Amino acid sequence: MQRYFVNVNQLNKNVVTISGSDVHHIKDVMRMHSGDKIICSCDEVAYLCVIEEISDVVRCSILEDITKNTSLNGKVTIAQGLVRREKTEEVVRRLTELGCSNYIPLIMKRSIIKIDKINDFKLDRYQKIIKEASEQSQRNDLMKISGVKSINDLIKELNDYDLLLLADANEDNFMLKDIDFVANHYQNILVVIGPEGGFDDSEKEILINNGFKVVSFGARVLRTETAPLYAMSVLGFLLGDKDED
Amino acid sequence: MQRYFVNVNQLNKNVVTISGSDVHHIKDVMRMHSGDKIICSCDEVAYLCVIEEISDVVRCSILEDITKNTSLNGKVTIAQGLVRREKTEEVVRRLTELGCSNYIPLIMKRSIIKIDKINDFKLDRYQKIIKEASEQSQRNDLMKISGVKSINDLIKELNDYDLLLLADANEDNFMLKDIDFVANHYQNILVVIGPEGGFDDSEKEILINNGFKVVSFGARVLRTETAPLYAMSVLGFLLGDKDED
Repeated sequence: MQRYFVNVNQLNKNVVTISGSDVHHIKDVMRMHSGDKIICSCDEVAYLCVIEEISDVVRCSILEDITKNTSLNGKVTIAQGLVRREKTEEVVRRLTELGCSNYIPLIMKRSIIKIDKINDFKLDRYQKIIKEASEQSQRNDLMKISGVKSINDLIKELNDYDLLLLADANEDNFMLKDIDFVANHYQNILVVIGPEGGFDDSEKEILINNGFKVVSFGARVLRTETAPLYAMSVLGFLLGDKDED
Repeated sequence: MQRYFVNVNQLNKNVVTISGSDVHHIKDVMRMHSGDKIICSCDEVAYLCVIEEISDVVRCSILEDITKNTSLNGKVTIAQGLVRREKTEEVVRRLTELGCSNYIPLIMKRSIIKIDKINDFKLDRYQKIIKEASEQSQRNDLMKISGVKSINDLIKELNDYDLLLLADANEDNFMLKDIDFVANHYQNILVVIGPEGGFDDSEKEILINNGFKVVSFGARVLRTETAPLYAMSVLGFLLGDKDED
């Protein structure tokens, strides 16, 4: 069933009022009518709703709370050296589907995207993609995405995390399987992934000095846009879903 | 270092002769000269070579065998309902990086791509992408890709596999983590993934009757082009690399 994210101010008792581009989607793309049912997600709660009226807005009545927990059993944040827009779009979409909590684009020395273009970072566009991907994948929450940060910004925010990983294609010995996820019950993992050109030595040094563990993602060299998908797939598998068992 | 795949007939004792589009890549894209070093991969062996001469062909001398095992500790075949060309291109590229052995595009009832367009299946184009992705990811072998098959074709070829999985977003209970990979030492896994519209009931039935186990990839609904990447990431993680330990 089609799912739409709404804000708490769009809820009034038993009624949800949908406005903006979702109205176009309901009317013209899905060609829905009064009586059709949709799911409205608000603040991590999913409501089964029936459409009562379609005009410039769509008005629905809430039938029942059908929230199903689609979260992972822990949070994963992926921070990645800035890559081109099409690649960021793909990464952001797939990470949302795979259950990632947070995406942080990083200014790094070997990024192809340069500092003077940072104003080009299309946060709005990525947030729209995240919303669509959350609806499609039936998440109740939205993946967060921050504006562009430096490594110095990032290391000021490390207190919340209980596992800090730096993915490096040159690392040979230490693999994800060497981390004891069962014993440690990690709840908040941060993975830093380099841009196309990889990490500069000084960047690696500052991260390692701040507690990051260098890890290999296997014997094959992954592209920078494949590495986050590998990390998120495997970490999602290892954390498991909240509603399991 | 740049890696090129060559056939056994391009090797003559200590000399490798590179022809075709790789010559353009070496000359005009990489702007290499005599004395520059490259890796030539042939029949799963990687040779460190030095360029001796660049003309209409590129002639190199072999310096040493530097084969590093980049294969997984077992084979994974992904069979997927036909999807659009751009999606197939992306899936094929990422699966190659992630160590997949074999990709089989399947005719399925709910594929958006219809039977009369099957001649449009650009096998040559996909093979080129696989070659590039193998070079970039430093694989010594190429992922195989077959022409389009039907489910009936597929079930005639099941003898080689020791684990048959059918990925279904509607499955709630049986997850990848419920499979005992350690005890069973699977060596040849086949995963079937539906097209955008999912499996038709009759397709699921025929696969289940032929020994497929229905498995969930987690609480979130993955797009058909994300599901193979999730499967390959997690199965690659579970199988591990051949050269580990």
